[in-house]
Amino acid sequence: MTTPEFDADVTAAIEQVRADVARLHGELTRYGLVVWTGGNVSGRVPGADLFVIKPSGVSYDDLAPENMILCDLDGNVIQGTPGSERNPSSDTAAHAYVYRHMPEVGGVVHTHSTFAVAWAARGEEIPCVITGMADEFGGPIPIGPFAIIGDDSIGRGIVETLTGHRSRAVLMQNHGPFTIGVNAKDAVKAAVMVEDAARSVHYAREAGPLIPIPQERIDALYARYQNVYGQGGDARR
Amino acid sequence: MTTPEFDADVTAAIEQVRADVARLHGELTRYGLVVWTGGNVSGRVPGADLFVIKPSGVSYDDLAPENMILCDLDGNVIQGTPGSERNPSSDTAAHAYVYRHMPEVGGVVHTHSTFAVAWAARGEEIPCVITGMADEFGGPIPIGPFAIIGDDSIGRGIVETLTGHRSRAVLMQNHGPFTIGVNAKDAVKAAVMVEDAARSVHYAREAGPLIPIPQERIDALYARYQNVYGQGGDARR
Amino acid sequence: MTTPEFDADVTAAIEQVRADVARLHGELTRYGLVVWTGGNVSGRVPGADLFVIKPSGVSYDDLAPENMILCDLDGNVIQGTPGSERNPSSDTAAHAYVYRHMPEVGGVVHTHSTFAVAWAARGEEIPCVITGMADEFGGPIPIGPFAIIGDDSIGRGIVETLTGHRSRAVLMQNHGPFTIGVNAKDAVKAAVMVEDAARSVHYAREAGPLIPIPQERIDALYARYQNVYGQGGDARR
Amino acid sequence: MTTPEFDADVTAAIEQVRADVARLHGELTRYGLVVWTGGNVSGRVPGADLFVIKPSGVSYDDLAPENMILCDLDGNVIQGTPGSERNPSSDTAAHAYVYRHMPEVGGVVHTHSTFAVAWAARGEEIPCVITGMADEFGGPIPIGPFAIIGDDSIGRGIVETLTGHRSRAVLMQNHGPFTIGVNAKDAVKAAVMVEDAARSVHYAREAGPLIPIPQERIDALYARYQNVYGQGGDARR
Repeated sequence: MTTPEFDADVTAAIEQVRADVARLHGELTRYGLVVWTGGNVSGRVPGADLFVIKPSGVSYDDLAPENMILCDLDGNVIQGTPGSERNPSSDTAAHAYVYRHMPEVGGVVHTHSTFAVAWAARGEEIPCVITGMADEFGGPIPIGPFAIIGDDSIGRGIVETLTGHRSRAVLMQNHGPFTIGVNAKDAVKAAVMVEDAARSVHYAREAGPLIPIPQERIDALYARYQNVYGQGGDARR
Repeated sequence: MTTPEFDADVTAAIEQVRADVARLHGELTRYGLVVWTGGNVSGRVPGADLFVIKPSGVSYDDLAPENMILCDLDGNVIQGTPGSERNPSSDTAAHAYVYRHMPEVGGVVHTHSTFAVAWAARGEEIPCVITGMADEFGGPIPIGPFAIIGDDSIGRGIVETLTGHRSRAVLMQNHGPFTIGVNAKDAVKAAVMVEDAARSVHYAREAGPLIPIPQERIDALYARYQNVYGQGGDARR
Repeated sequence: MTTPEFDADVTAAIEQVRADVARLHGELTRYGLVVWTGGNVSGRVPGADLFVIKPSGVSYDDLAPENMILCDLDGNVIQGTPGSERNPSSDTAAHAYVYRHMPEVGGVVHTHSTFAVAWAARGEEIPCVITGMADEFGGPIPIGPFAIIGDDSIGRGIVETLTGHRSRAVLMQNHGPFTIGVNAKDAVKAAVMVEDAARSVHYAREAGPLIPIPQERIDALYARYQNVYGQGGDARR
Repeated sequence: MTTPEFDADVTAAIEQVRADVARLHGELTRYGLVVWTGGNVSGRVPGADLFVIKPSGVSYDDLAPENMILCDLDGNVIQGTPGSERNPSSDTAAHAYVYRHMPEVGGVVHTHSTFAVAWAARGEEIPCVITGMADEFGGPIPIGPFAIIGDDSIGRGIVETLTGHRSRAVLMQNHGPFTIGVNAKDAVKAAVMVEDAARSVHYAREAGPLIPIPQERIDALYARYQNVYGQGGDARR
């Protein structure tokens, strides 16, 4: 086996995505979204049919850039590259499916965060009753189908649920959240925000009826946040 | 554009408020009141019609004093000062409105802390059933109107709800808490205490009926705490 | 004013208690039992009618041994000793009352920890349905009377509730937990364990009926733990 | 008393297990599964009738390898070895019983983690409604009998409940979780995962009916995870 050769641009892009994906796993532990070796972040390599993903079952203390694994869009490990001696995340096929079918997606994240999983175990979407959800997701966070590892059913469930939907997060029934974004950081942000919303709305509803937000207000909040928040429209970058 | 010139006193005050506001954001993360880049602290510059606020959408790891943004009381960035190349918090107009209409206020804080948001999503004030709330807020924590970003409605809702009220915290309906204080630190303390009260009273009420505190006892606790607690009446400073 | 002179033994004991009390406040933050400057630990000076307590309203980041305050058993600050320029905790009178009336007590702790406060706001004792509570408290954790700062009513409520009771913790109604121990560390341990029990039993009861533990089993667990656990009966030291 | 002599292989294995057991206690605090000195991890010494366990009532800050205690499979401390001057965990008899009766077990962990204890206080097994539980435990997490320290009843309850069961975790009624594994790390992982499942399913069920996972899907998830996850079937190692 020979080490594949990439253009200088692609090589640089791979290095950047490896560094980003490795570092962003730290946000999953910072916000308590994962335990042990669970959860995974991936990022598409701009300008190439490649993405970078976490190895399977490796400790969060051991996630250096060179341990990340480079895959093609069918989820095959690119042999001869750093990390390729390891198995990629067992959710690699689902990530690959998303990258193949949603070209606008640059990052995918999966966690088993507590409150998002709780909504998923009931198969119940999270209603949009707080302005933070309207900003970030533009409406409710939907439920995806029950699907298990072994074929394309998880990836297909994500794509079918999120295509044409404002939400960057889907709660796969009985399983947990998958989030997408323009890049890995944006997908991680969505994973943080979906758990935050799942938690707040859980506690809110436990104690009495919720006040809905009128749809036109949700629309206004979403439009503003996507276009104005941050430094020059960088809310998503 | 030229850098504005301030009196030496005002220059020193600006530096102090920049340092305080930058540092106090760390209290929001320490107590888990914010995620990602959410939440914001501002502080009025004593002796000037100015305040200092967090930039929009910037990581909590990157909040140095020189990144804070100096604004006038209409919420306009003072061009040519450190940080002025960035956009201020998207809640800047609400902070400015409070400073214009409540001259006794020296600090404003906004978070989306979990339990305060849960009460806000039901539009339900937090009843004063624990002595810690009586000390700090002198009664229930009120709900403000539903209002969204885009005009003065958030600032007006805060001012109308808190004017003449003992509470330094208001839960804006479907949105989250805004707190005020004699300075930025005092407003941050209120943000910490409102979440603490929201959480304790949430759990208390889930499990059965609450015992009210007689009003005269609430009054006595509030009077003592505002005047006696701490080192020489410094509970609020 | 002159600095008081103590025997060498007492001087050494004071230094030790200052160091213990200062350090033990760190356990309150480690276990999330306090926010901001709330909560307080005190320790009796062995061989003297003195105790050491936290200053009022001072940050947990600033609790060095020399900032702790030495008091007599009436709660008066011993002038001329380190820290005596500050005000002691506003709960000092309650601590002093306990030391005067319970000579076996060597440490007192007060917090507003979330779940203990939730039970206190309902005025409901925590039933002993988990073996960890039986070990540590030998039965339910009782409720004390509603009492507010200003006279001896808090101290009296603690003493009347805990005298002759196995529990080292009392939940003062609408207020929060006070714990006692053979020394400051033991009282801090009780503060940690009461919140742990309050939280577990809260969640247990939310979801359905609890299974009681027969009294003779509670007695057996308590007897063993007090005598056998740890290194040579040091469970409490 | 003379220091016992072991073969070089056994000596090396003891050193390794001491290091592992000491280090793994840090995972219990990292995930908030224990408070104060509660909880304990043990590991069997491969190739010998020995295991290593935590001393009783010692702070988590003081758990160096040389403080761990070497025991035979009857739970007797091997005198003359490092740490043997201390008392072993008060749960040592239960650990020893498991090692004697379940030769495939290489590690045992006990905690009083909050949500697992809550299910235990109701004597209610955790239903398998999330795929993470199906992966890790292959079905519900069972309840063991009420048993207290003093004879073999805890150990017997663990062994009787887990023998022939897929689950590596048992919730001892009114007490808390015990977990087993192929080694100490695997048992610690099970302790982390049982609390994670207990928490998610608690919140899920609070808010409405749960969707069951069909048994054949649980079987498929369990089979895959035990055989494929991780790096070359190392999910459990």
